[in-house]
Amino acid sequence: MTTLVTGGCGFVGLNIVEELLKEDKDVVLYDRLQLPTSAQISFRERGARLATIIGDVKDVAALKRVFQDFEIRHVIHAAAITPGTDREAREPREIVDVNVCGTINVLEACRNRGCERIVYVSSGVAYGKAHDDGGVLREDVSHPRPDNINGITKFAAEQIALRLGAVWNLPVVCVRVGTVCGPWEFDTGVRDSLSVQLQVARLAIRGELAVVPASEGWRDWIYSRDVATGLVAVLQARSPRYNMYHLTGGGAWHASFVDWCETLKRAFPKFSWRVVRSGERPNVSFPRDRGRTPMDIGRIVKDIGFKPRFGPREAHDDYIEWIQGHLDFMSA
Amino acid sequence: MTTLVTGGCGFVGLNIVEELLKEDKDVVLYDRLQLPTSAQISFRERGARLATIIGDVKDVAALKRVFQDFEIRHVIHAAAITPGTDREAREPREIVDVNVCGTINVLEACRNRGCERIVYVSSGVAYGKAHDDGGVLREDVSHPRPDNINGITKFAAEQIALRLGAVWNLPVVCVRVGTVCGPWEFDTGVRDSLSVQLQVARLAIRGELAVVPASEGWRDWIYSRDVATGLVAVLQARSPRYNMYHLTGGGAWHASFVDWCETLKRAFPKFSWRVVRSGERPNVSFPRDRGRTPMDIGRIVKDIGFKPRFGPREAHDDYIEWIQGHLDFMSA
Repeated sequence: MTTLVTGGCGFVGLNIVEELLKEDKDVVLYDRLQLPTSAQISFRERGARLATIIGDVKDVAALKRVFQDFEIRHVIHAAAITPGTDREAREPREIVDVNVCGTINVLEACRNRGCERIVYVSSGVAYGKAHDDGGVLREDVSHPRPDNINGITKFAAEQIALRLGAVWNLPVVCVRVGTVCGPWEFDTGVRDSLSVQLQVARLAIRGELAVVPASEGWRDWIYSRDVATGLVAVLQARSPRYNMYHLTGGGAWHASFVDWCETLKRAFPKFSWRVVRSGERPNVSFPRDRGRTPMDIGRIVKDIGFKPRFGPREAHDDYIEWIQGHLDFMSA
Repeated sequence: MTTLVTGGCGFVGLNIVEELLKEDKDVVLYDRLQLPTSAQISFRERGARLATIIGDVKDVAALKRVFQDFEIRHVIHAAAITPGTDREAREPREIVDVNVCGTINVLEACRNRGCERIVYVSSGVAYGKAHDDGGVLREDVSHPRPDNINGITKFAAEQIALRLGAVWNLPVVCVRVGTVCGPWEFDTGVRDSLSVQLQVARLAIRGELAVVPASEGWRDWIYSRDVATGLVAVLQARSPRYNMYHLTGGGAWHASFVDWCETLKRAFPKFSWRVVRSGERPNVSFPRDRGRTPMDIGRIVKDIGFKPRFGPREAHDDYIEWIQGHLDFMSA
């Protein structure tokens, strides 16, 4: 009962691998990157259960070899580029190749291999302009209107995954994840917006001053450990009724940024922070260009039995402890 | 003032090229295929205005050479795969490569070349499940929910074209076209559903019996000459207010199929047709798996000044005359 995690060395991927290993699952991690040293150390107790394959989701032959070499029953496809505007302008084809064609490649490798579930990790960014409508987004009535290449390719990839699931007879389920912060976030080279939590934490570790924007806007934050728990719950649910679920912290994270800064200040006394003054530039930036409408999580709560374990306070306490145990990783 | 038409040897492409030549424009036709002999003959009067380049939209270097060799001011990007279910299952990556990456390539070749307008030829298929909602689809309030790889890639391509238009500063306008029939339709190798009009016409030319399905369902038909006129009108409009327009026959084509069969019978007396009997299989098929909700054309009528010239009766008379003058092409 082996689980393949593509993009397993990414931010979300490392959390998924950690969660699966905690549950004593056999894991094949497939990524362009080496497993970071900090993760090697953290995962070493269950190291015998983990196989790391260096490979690109653009390489369908390499993906097929993974299915020849391991008896994969579950797949979480988390490999993706999460581009900012600069990267959109610079390499749009590469984004399509990785996000859309990479998804097709993973599904092609799954064909006729007896996979019991394939979870595609999509994103709330797929909703695009629908975030401007207000209210609450729901899987059954809200329709994505993606408007940047990140959202357009995530939406295309999830819809193609569902369509190929139907025509190739593969059990595909998609999960649209909120804005993630927490353990294992780092600059992977293909995530162009780091969470504001991480940006401030880095300044805190160096004992510097954070000058933060006046208003954050609403974000559908979810703690990275909860993302992993939720994705693994969807992966292992006996018979999910739907092929699309939201996965966020459930909306309790409003206005928690001050608390995070204060939590950091207690842990790193040389750190200080304040709101930007008129005419000044902040030295941390909030991700992307719009607030996000909350994504309702009633479906995953009711149908999968998932509940976020971390509100902002629990997340801050947990993340601070994790940061203090991973200062090398944080400074890398 | 040269216009580049990608996919210029396709069904819609040939109509566009013919229309541009009629208007005494200089045209560069870019296509994987040779110009069909019938089209060479039809276009020969304006042949000096037409340059034909054999090339693939997957080949960005070849596209860039076109912009070096010609002073392109207008672009109609019509090259696309229009896959049926078999092709979706067989070559999904190829469809993404051509429809999505091909669009990126065309736009990349346009960069810094002084293009005054780039029209992307999208399709009503982008609406997908939105066709099931009833009512009338409008550009400003109806949101695509594509559910096959044809619609998913057309929607992704149009949205990426608009996004790259913004980040690369290119004047992109998208047009969602209805279901097309009329002159120059043929099996290009990448259009998997031929119109029912063409299927019946081929039987008529051979003097055979057409056994047609009992009910056609509503289709947003548009005559191919009107598609060309509409696209060229958008291409040349001084300052279109929108970057998205519908282009269909405007909804007058309901229940016109009997009339087409009878028109063919008058032209080809050996031909006969009847509705399928219980237990029998029709020998023509209606395209795709669902009816289509009408797409409102108020925006293109009002803003661009386009009006469809062909209702079903005018279209049938014109198409019959065209068919009789292109029997070689029809039988190829």
